[in-house]
Amino acid sequence: MDQIRLEVSYDGTAYGGFQIQKNAPTIQGELEKALAVIYKEPLRITGAGRTDAGVHARGQVAHYAPPFAIPAPRLPAALNVLLPDDIVVLKAAAAGPDFHACYDARRKIYRYTLDRAHYPQVMRRRFAYHFPGAFDRPLVEEAARMLRGTHNFQAFRAAGSAVRSTVRTLYRVHLESLPQEQMLQFTFEGDGFLYRMVRMLVGSLLRVSRGRLQPEAVAAALVGECPQAAGPTAPPQGLCLEKVIY
Amino acid sequence: MDQIRLEVSYDGTAYGGFQIQKNAPTIQGELEKALAVIYKEPLRITGAGRTDAGVHARGQVAHYAPPFAIPAPRLPAALNVLLPDDIVVLKAAAAGPDFHACYDARRKIYRYTLDRAHYPQVMRRRFAYHFPGAFDRPLVEEAARMLRGTHNFQAFRAAGSAVRSTVRTLYRVHLESLPQEQMLQFTFEGDGFLYRMVRMLVGSLLRVSRGRLQPEAVAAALVGECPQAAGPTAPPQGLCLEKVIY
Repeated sequence: MDQIRLEVSYDGTAYGGFQIQKNAPTIQGELEKALAVIYKEPLRITGAGRTDAGVHARGQVAHYAPPFAIPAPRLPAALNVLLPDDIVVLKAAAAGPDFHACYDARRKIYRYTLDRAHYPQVMRRRFAYHFPGAFDRPLVEEAARMLRGTHNFQAFRAAGSAVRSTVRTLYRVHLESLPQEQMLQFTFEGDGFLYRMVRMLVGSLLRVSRGRLQPEAVAAALVGECPQAAGPTAPPQGLCLEKVIY
Repeated sequence: MDQIRLEVSYDGTAYGGFQIQKNAPTIQGELEKALAVIYKEPLRITGAGRTDAGVHARGQVAHYAPPFAIPAPRLPAALNVLLPDDIVVLKAAAAGPDFHACYDARRKIYRYTLDRAHYPQVMRRRFAYHFPGAFDRPLVEEAARMLRGTHNFQAFRAAGSAVRSTVRTLYRVHLESLPQEQMLQFTFEGDGFLYRMVRMLVGSLLRVSRGRLQPEAVAAALVGECPQAAGPTAPPQGLCLEKVIY
């Protein structure tokens, strides 16, 4: 039978992350609870990426094997009634018996948003990291250019993840300003991301923005030198999984 | 001695409104608590407008008489450390001994935001009213034009406020679409607003948008006929006090 592929958005503020765990509510846990009501039996879902505690998503993807067929177009409305209002299913579609939300993902797009106003903008505080003051944009863009391409991102990885290879390709590392909103936004598009990699990349770029780290040091971290140029891990609220591309 | 004039922004979701009350936390209450820490004695503040429970502000104004002088530019940072993170003081300035935040206000600008996406946009859910589906924009703009000018807004006023006159002037009633965000935004600029007036105006305009009310009925409500054309009161989360003009 076809599997179901869900596209999910969420405000991660109140959650311990996407992946189910014992000590905190999770996105996966809430989705599985709602699906269990609909299918009247427990189900397991698999997400495209395990967003951390406090990280958001506009286009997370998850799949599951349904015990019986329900027309996919009916699922979002049915699930959204059952889900808390900080999790919204945007789309459901039949996905073929072999689809895997994580293994089949070809690219992911993450965004990291900085609130550049002098005092925090209250209405954006859950979705942006307040980072006012000096910001050497040309220097940051120079460092961003060095991150593009295929590199060994070993230094930009937090402990706690076992992966075979730490080589990843970044197709896009882009900095955009939203002047009306007093926001700056990083976009990262890559074939995959290591544990905390985006937040550590942002951490390095923010040090560059203050003149505390040279772009060359970031480049050195990519070839196994100067690992101390990687990080620190930027706070979770600025990060959002925008899209997963298959 | 000079009074102090504060410019304040807040996410009203967690509050019973601006004005202090017994059974719920309020913006006024939180501001007075923070000021009491700074001045080491209780203070009373007066706001330009009493936003309701769940209503937000980007530019609320309040004044108070300080027991002793503290340089105004130092106040925002000092207050923001003490305030919860859903209230931010943007500015403080000396305001002259006779300044009154409410009586001296010449105009106020309110915005009401509609989320027009099919499913609610999670990251905007606290600051927009989810109103998908049919929307007859030309008809709404016709009704909006009729609201402009000086009228008796008696029908667009909820019980519970005692005012001498219910005549107000609306200088601007404007509908703007933010297509990238899938939002529609009403702007109301007037010399003053009655209790729940903006939300009742929006309630009428939303009925017009669905073809359930004719623009002429809205106009009739302004001349004492057809009071049932006023309202219902639109939900609070879409409303934001943008600016107070002196």
